[in-house]
Amino acid sequence: MSSNQSNDHPKLTVMIASPLEPEFVERIAAVAPDEVELIYRPNLLPPTRYQGDHNGLSDWKRSEADEAEWQALLKRSTVLWDFASSGGLNPLELSPALKWVQTTSAGVGQYVKRLGVAESDLIVTTSSGVHAEPLTDFVFATILFHEKRFATLQSEKQAKVWKRYASGELAGKTIAIVGPGRIGREIARISHAFGITVHAMPRTFSPDRAAELGADKIFRREQLHEMLGSADYVVLCTPHTPDTEGLIGAAEISVMKPGVVLVNIARGVVIDEDAMTEALRTGQIALAGLDVFQVEPLPIDSTLWDLPNVIINPHSASTAPSENSKITDIFCGNLRLFLDGKFSEMSPVLDKKLLY
Amino acid sequence: MSSNQSNDHPKLTVMIASPLEPEFVERIAAVAPDEVELIYRPNLLPPTRYQGDHNGLSDWKRSEADEAEWQALLKRSTVLWDFASSGGLNPLELSPALKWVQTTSAGVGQYVKRLGVAESDLIVTTSSGVHAEPLTDFVFATILFHEKRFATLQSEKQAKVWKRYASGELAGKTIAIVGPGRIGREIARISHAFGITVHAMPRTFSPDRAAELGADKIFRREQLHEMLGSADYVVLCTPHTPDTEGLIGAAEISVMKPGVVLVNIARGVVIDEDAMTEALRTGQIALAGLDVFQVEPLPIDSTLWDLPNVIINPHSASTAPSENSKITDIFCGNLRLFLDGKFSEMSPVLDKKLLY
Repeated sequence: MSSNQSNDHPKLTVMIASPLEPEFVERIAAVAPDEVELIYRPNLLPPTRYQGDHNGLSDWKRSEADEAEWQALLKRSTVLWDFASSGGLNPLELSPALKWVQTTSAGVGQYVKRLGVAESDLIVTTSSGVHAEPLTDFVFATILFHEKRFATLQSEKQAKVWKRYASGELAGKTIAIVGPGRIGREIARISHAFGITVHAMPRTFSPDRAAELGADKIFRREQLHEMLGSADYVVLCTPHTPDTEGLIGAAEISVMKPGVVLVNIARGVVIDEDAMTEALRTGQIALAGLDVFQVEPLPIDSTLWDLPNVIINPHSASTAPSENSKITDIFCGNLRLFLDGKFSEMSPVLDKKLLY
Repeated sequence: MSSNQSNDHPKLTVMIASPLEPEFVERIAAVAPDEVELIYRPNLLPPTRYQGDHNGLSDWKRSEADEAEWQALLKRSTVLWDFASSGGLNPLELSPALKWVQTTSAGVGQYVKRLGVAESDLIVTTSSGVHAEPLTDFVFATILFHEKRFATLQSEKQAKVWKRYASGELAGKTIAIVGPGRIGREIARISHAFGITVHAMPRTFSPDRAAELGADKIFRREQLHEMLGSADYVVLCTPHTPDTEGLIGAAEISVMKPGVVLVNIARGVVIDEDAMTEALRTGQIALAGLDVFQVEPLPIDSTLWDLPNVIINPHSASTAPSENSKITDIFCGNLRLFLDGKFSEMSPVLDKKLLY
């Protein structure tokens, strides 16, 4: 990886290791055709289930011959678009020359730890930020569904009942954002447009942090209860780290305003699912919009399926048609920096200690 | 109505003629206690069905004695908070001294015409603008319900199916606002926050109009089809005037993008309900959020009740808990102006020719 790469130097081997539309592969190929050998074998990638699907059909398997070819290609790759599905094998064993992986997800900290590369020098750039808009859409879809009483409208429609009512409204409400980052900033921005006051609890507290996050007020970890008690809407968007696991337990739920709207777009383990289920049953939580669960797919015997006041999103709230286009933008920018040896400028880079 | 009213002059008689919470009556009473006699008889007003209900129970009637008292009070009133429910009688016959009515609705043009006071000198101030936020909430509740595929999520929840998907997204879409005014401006503002391009067709076209409305582009009446064809979301918020009746017919619906989201917060007669119903059936309109209908309450035999892709709001989308507080603000400001003889500064005044 000389920063003065010429045609005499061997090309950088970049492999597309998860499903990607040809138009985006072409954009990647156009970044530095003389410096990059781009490996893209759609026939070795699983069929997708929907636009922006990075995993593909779960029961799909390569033939033995295809798998051998797949492994051989991985073996000589220095850069990957996504960790290759590999049954949990260490990516550095599969690709001894591997220096950099661009992931198509934002929350890959725990996965990187499980793969055993958290201690390595591997550069992991994520798609953090890409999902901010679709996740914010999900947050406000949930909040507006609640305030405009769509569930009631639906049941009255079923009964052909015309009954006028006063709905709630967003203006004047308060939202609490637990773990604000790129997504939290976007939620804060839209909240302000709707006239909602923004409270936030970032991981690090500093005088400038509120302004950086677009929050009206930020809270320290020891003020978590105070913040939760102030809010009409609580949004969890913290990364999954040892610090955040179980952050919201029965005690935290009990200090929330009765009738609060809860949205979890973080990870299922951030909240005590049993305590949350109980609070949904009593109405302490009026409505939960859930994109993540302790166990995914959500087990068929989970009570959550049966509760009327839960919106269950199968961990797809972040997936939107524009996703691969946006991740391609990130990757192309990073690829140029990588080729130029400007590793420290690549972004957004996973902090393998903090796991986000 | 001298502008130099003193305690020697007779007080201005102001009557609260529709249900209103005591806290707001107190605020009105505090504007000019020496100059105003405020009539507020909760026992002569119908019980409300919900917060912000201005009509009250429909089958409620005053006793004969109460009705006589009610009529006597109306007879000596110069200012009314809302037209008194009076079986369609001319308000100027009920209240010969009547000079000004503050309505609790924005779209009162047709009603004023029916009451027979469109040609009179009566000042009618409306609550135009008060409903902008709750109606905008309804518009985005509908759009987000569609884009985040909540109907699909609900049916898959019922079947306990976990199936990942790519939802739509608001960023990059185009909204067409038919008849933008105070509400349209609010819709435009929130649209921009979400990254939506705003097209609008105002009644009057001028070079500055787009900026005034916060629109990216405005269209003339003869460009209506062009605008409708450009939009992923179409919102009707035009007043009901002879000009707008039947504005959106089968031809207008047919030029919309297949799969368009339609929101009607104007009046039912602005759109051809049969043509709309057919377009909902074929999917030409993917989802309709309807607050208004040709006949209200929506008749029990209307097909709309049975269509899965319709959200039926019983003309309550504008009603929110803050409503009476906001109308009280308007009324108190206007009352001071009225007492001072500054009639031309009162706002928002109904144009009894344009009917909005």
